[in-house]
Order: sequence, then C-alpha cells, then structure tokens
Amino acid sequence: MTLSPLAPVAFPDLPIIKGVTFAAAAAGVKYAGRRDVMLAVMDAGTTIAGVFTTSATRSAPVRDCQAKLAQPSGGPAAILVNSGNSNAFTGKAGDGSVTAITQGVADLLGIASSRVFTASTGVIGEPLKHDRILAKLTALRDGQSAAALADAAAAIMTTDTFAKGSTQSVQIDGKTVNIAGIAKGSGMIAPDMATMLVYIFTDAAIGQADLQALVSMHNTKTFNCITVDSDTSTSDSLMIAATGTSGVDVTGNAAFSDALHTVMLDLAHQVVRDGEGATKFVTINVRGAANDADARKVAMATANSPLVKTAIAGEDPNWGRVVMAVGKSGAQADRDTLTITFGDVLVAQNGWVAPSYSEDAGAAVMKHPDITIGIDLGIGTGQATAWTCDLTHGYITINADYRS
Amino acid sequence: MTLSPLAPVAFPDLPIIKGVTFAAAAAGVKYAGRRDVMLAVMDAGTTIAGVFTTSATRSAPVRDCQAKLAQPSGGPAAILVNSGNSNAFTGKAGDGSVTAITQGVADLLGIASSRVFTASTGVIGEPLKHDRILAKLTALRDGQSAAALADAAAAIMTTDTFAKGSTQSVQIDGKTVNIAGIAKGSGMIAPDMATMLVYIFTDAAIGQADLQALVSMHNTKTFNCITVDSDTSTSDSLMIAATGTSGVDVTGNAAFSDALHTVMLDLAHQVVRDGEGATKFVTINVRGAANDADARKVAMATANSPLVKTAIAGEDPNWGRVVMAVGKSGAQADRDTLTITFGDVLVAQNGWVAPSYSEDAGAAVMKHPDITIGIDLGIGTGQATAWTCDLTHGYITINADYRS
Repeated sequence: MTLSPLAPVAFPDLPIIKGVTFAAAAAGVKYAGRRDVMLAVMDAGTTIAGVFTTSATRSAPVRDCQAKLAQPSGGPAAILVNSGNSNAFTGKAGDGSVTAITQGVADLLGIASSRVFTASTGVIGEPLKHDRILAKLTALRDGQSAAALADAAAAIMTTDTFAKGSTQSVQIDGKTVNIAGIAKGSGMIAPDMATMLVYIFTDAAIGQADLQALVSMHNTKTFNCITVDSDTSTSDSLMIAATGTSGVDVTGNAAFSDALHTVMLDLAHQVVRDGEGATKFVTINVRGAANDADARKVAMATANSPLVKTAIAGEDPNWGRVVMAVGKSGAQADRDTLTITFGDVLVAQNGWVAPSYSEDAGAAVMKHPDITIGIDLGIGTGQATAWTCDLTHGYITINADYRS
Repeated sequence: MTLSPLAPVAFPDLPIIKGVTFAAAAAGVKYAGRRDVMLAVMDAGTTIAGVFTTSATRSAPVRDCQAKLAQPSGGPAAILVNSGNSNAFTGKAGDGSVTAITQGVADLLGIASSRVFTASTGVIGEPLKHDRILAKLTALRDGQSAAALADAAAAIMTTDTFAKGSTQSVQIDGKTVNIAGIAKGSGMIAPDMATMLVYIFTDAAIGQADLQALVSMHNTKTFNCITVDSDTSTSDSLMIAATGTSGVDVTGNAAFSDALHTVMLDLAHQVVRDGEGATKFVTINVRGAANDADARKVAMATANSPLVKTAIAGEDPNWGRVVMAVGKSGAQADRDTLTITFGDVLVAQNGWVAPSYSEDAGAAVMKHPDITIGIDLGIGTGQATAWTCDLTHGYITINADYRS
C-alpha cells in the first residue's frame, strides 16, 4: 500500500501513561508477516468509557464491550484488538470467539473477564481463527511495555497506510496530565458513531460517568463529523482509559477537556487523511443555517457527495455540485441567500456566481492538498463542520478487490 | 464516450402518437457538432402532468414548469429541452432565460406562454446562452415531424452513452392506445424524485388530475427506486402528455396503467444501465422487513453503498458489505433472522454464512452483467426493490474532469 500523500511527517512521540502497558504480536489472523494483535493491560483503579457503532449488525466484540461497560467496574482491566477479521456477522461462533479470547486473557492475567474488552477489525462474515490469537497471549503478556503504544497503533491497521497517534499534555495544579491516543481507519468511514477503532489513554483521575460524558460530548464534534465513503462500520469502537496515576482529578477541568478534544480531533483528521485513495483533505464549513441540525445535513450531504468528491479529485472547482449537494440535503435553503467560498475565494452569492469570481482563482485553490469549502445559507445561526477526502481511482482499486 | 456494456441492443421503434410532433437541432449551447435542443409541439386538448426534483436548489425551468402545471390548462402546448447547460443556480438571469425561451416559442407557434414548458440539463451555475436556442426556433418549428421522437431522445443526452426510448401499446375497446417515452440520465441519479429528464407521450384520453395521479403512483416504484450515485439532480423532470387522439378514455383502465408502468420502469432501468462507468446492472430485492419504509431504507442503503458497489465492480461476492449496509440503514434488523442471496445462491442465514455456500458459487453469480441481491430481514412483510449499478474507475474518470 502506497503511503497516503496526506500522511503526517512522522508518528508522534507518545508519552508514558503510568498504569497501562502494551504489547503487539504477529498472530497471522489474516495478514502474514506483520503484527496484527495488540494487548493493553491497565492497573486497578483505571476508569474506562467508550462509544460504539450504531449499526444494527454490529460485531460480537462491540456487543460484548457495550454490555460490560454498562456494569459496575473495578479491578485491573485489559483491551485486546486484532486486525484482519472483524468477527462481525459470524453468528454464535463469533460470540464464542469473544468468550474464548476474553476468558483466555482473564485467566492468564488473573483479572475478571468482565474487565477484558476486545475489538476486531477486517473482513466481515468470516470465522475468526481465535486459536491463533490465544496462542500469542503468553507472548503478549511477557512483552508488556509502557513504551509500546506505537507498536499497538501499528498492529490494529487494516487498509491504513500509516499508523495514527496523537498526544497532549496539560499542567493542572502544578502537575502534568498526559493523554495519548491511537486510531485505525481508512474505509467504511461514516458517522454515527464514526468510523474506526480508537484507543485513548490518560493518567488523569476521573469518575466513569464523567469520563463517559466527556468522551461522548467530544465525539459528536470529532469522529462523528468525518466521512470517507458514507459507509458505517460494524466494528467502530472508541475507548478511553484513565489510570489516575497523575494524581490529578480532572473532573470538570476545562484544560483537560480541551486537550482531550484536541487529541480526538487530531486522530479523526488522521483517519480522513488516510481515507482510501485520498489525495485531498477537505473541510466543509457550514454557517447561517436555520439550526445546527440543518447545518449538519448540508455539511454531510456535501462531504458524502460522490460528484463533489470526484470533482475535488480532478482539481475541478465545480461549485455547481456544491449547490446540488445543498439542494439535496433536506435542509432549509434559499438559492438567493446562499454564499459559497473555496478557501479565501468568494465563488457564489445572491443566487449566482460572484462577479469577482474567476475560474483560475477557483482552480488555484483546488491545487492545494488541504481545501476548505465554505457554505453560508444566509438564513439563521446554525453551523457545523465536516471533514472528508476526495473520491479517486485509488478508492476503486482498493475496494474492488479488497478480499483477494 | 464508449457505449455502456449494459446498453440495449437497439433503440426501439417508437410508434406515431397522433397530436404531437418533434424536432431536434444543433444550437451549440455547449456541445459542438451534435443536436442539443428538442422541441415537442402538442395539439389543443392534450393533457399534461409531471413529477420534478425535490431539490431545494432546483433549476429555473423546473420552478417554471411546476408553476404552470399548478394552473388550469388548455390549448396547444410545447416542451423545449436543451442539453449542455442546466440553467440551475443562475439567479435572476436564469429566470430571464426561461422567460425568453418560453415567450419565444409561444410567439412563434401562436400559443400561450403558460403552455410552454422547458427543461435544461448539463453544467450547473453557468449562464445559459439562450440566444443560441432562440436562433434555432424557426428551424425547430419548420422541422416538426411526428416520427422524430428518436431525434428528440438523442438531443437531450449529456454524459449518456445511448439514447433511451420505450414503448407499449394496449388494445382497449377494440382500439389501440400507444405510449412512447424517452429519457436521459447517467449521473447525479438518486431518488426523490429520481434523476433525469423523461418525456412520455400517449394518444390516450385522460383528465389532468387522473393523469397526474397515475404518473405519480408509478414514479414511486420506478424512477424513485433507482440510484447511480446518490446525488440528486437540480433539474429532474418527468412529463407526460396525453393527446387523446386514440379516442380511448383510459381513466381507471388497468391495462393502460400497467403499460405506462412498464414504459416508466423500462426507461428507469435504461438510465441505470447507462450509469456513469457502469458494468453491472444490480437489482436489490428486500423482503421480510418490519414495513415497506424499512425495506426501502435497506434497499437504498445497499444500492448507494460505495463499498457494496465497488465490490460488485470487482466481481467480488463480498456479502459482508451487504450486512454492513443493512446495519447502517436505520431499519429494524436482527442478525440472526437475516438471509442474503446472490442470484439463486443462498449466501447467509441464521446470523452467519450458509453451510451450503461456497465462494466459487458466489463468484460465479458476480460474473454476470445482471446481478440480483436478495435480502430477507425475517421480521415482517415489508418489501421494496431498488436498482443500481456498480462503482468503477469509469465513474471517477467521467466525473473528475467533467467540465474541461
């Protein structure tokens, strides 16, 4: 797989989060010659929260995680993730694989199986060869290291062309609180909940209900605002673990909330930048809608439009297709109050192309790898932002022959 | 443009519909060296009904047609259609172009401008050079022929690779009633209302309210059930004109209704068969949903899924992506009651791949140009069918550089 042209320069240096360790292994679930399983182990006292796909056909691991997070928590915990097979639509056998893995981890580490979470990502509908994972559990236990989060990021990749990591540190009451997150995701990316696997670790101290509220709130403006192809994964999972080892209670702390938002937005953007076949990173800013819900409809209709996305792939400032997307969104819109900008270039207003607009100016914006499309509906104060990528031959090539 | 591999063998022989004549001309609106304007002229007594795009940014001609159909009708009528420019999002100048064309036709033919309907299809947001059309009006009048409907079908094409026509004749009370229709459409194809320009002519006699009810009813199961790329045109228009010249009143006649449905479905399928870049014609049959609305959600989610459509392009029986589409559709679904078939091959049931299924059997189905995907949700009696095509490199090539 060729590295995405939108990839960050380098994987970030992730800080040590005391109270959690990691290891990755090559279990050969599907891929040969690469790490495809990661195990994170967390000390007692760690608070865990999560957000999961809304798919009606969500995977066995997702259902298991949701059930476990709904129960009272405590004690040491673990998260095991494999790539190469999603264990989705695998019937009772899939449920059995989850039980086998969670019980295997619990027995090996001497923790409760109700505190062992799993995720699987990859092909849907094929049996998960969980024996291959069980055979690596001892190695995963013995290899645990506080510095191996980057290895974990590599192990959860599927069609990703780069590993995704992000970190923030904030000073609170003279102490440092660290946040470090990893993500995978490249195709089958659409909101509700978006889109992928995300694991965030922090040494902050915070109660489970507060942590859940915080991550759910930020999710709506980060992972739920990105789309690559409008398709919703059966495996999407975001989990956050707060070990408390910094000794700082961040309940209600705005600096921590901002830092967490920054990490989540950064990881969400990295998923779009690794969108299958992507050559452009596109920000859709919608303003002036009747309300925020209408603004979101316009942002997502534009971000998901194949015609808008192929025009961007062709570096064609085809703003008529943006007009089309506004029109089909279902949001209240008025041709004569609509304003469209490409970057800093005013393209259309008052129901027609702007007198100052030139095709050369629009085309110049389209040459950049990062493009912002502004849409002001001129009706109210509703606003929303969505992030997407272009739709290219690369997407077709990757997905027309994914399984072979 | 290479002919679609899914094109019909030949354009059908369309019957003469007494009371309406046609002509096509090369006005050079955008395309050079091909006919791009058609004019249909109908005798007094013709009943006209229509269905139009629901886009909030619909074009000036669409708004004009909707306003005129809402008024009492009578007298001779005309329909003028140009390709190459959609006259959408062209502000007050666009409204002016519609007025100029409709008044020009009215003056030339001596009919009321309230009985002159227009449609424009092509690029959005560029001014329509209506003077080029006005310059051809005399030629369009002088060239009128009852046999020129095929010429009209060719003149309204944009990215279409073949002209689309369909016909049915029914015997009622010992007399023959003829229906002949033409359509254009290839990209920006999605329901509500689908998708394109469609003009149907019949020598049946029927009142305007009855004709409107009939065409609206059939539209929900034909043009509103097809999708190429989920994008909704700003120009979609379907109009039907009943001249009454057969002398047969078809009000409430089931045979006529069936024949009209057949013509509309045939034209809708031809649009999908000419979907931009299409190499596969795909029927999505959904059964066993909680209700028809849920069935439609599943059918359209599957038909619009880029991952399903690229898998089909790659002849990959990736039924996991069908499971994904069911899951994201928003319809009530249960993993353990879901059944999926590809053609006659049972693929999945009871929450997992069927014991009898083999990848070779699935792959064999995918080699055909016409593929049927069956989805039984196993919950209730709701059903729906949608038709779509695959998503190929051809779609990207056509749309990444449409305007240049």
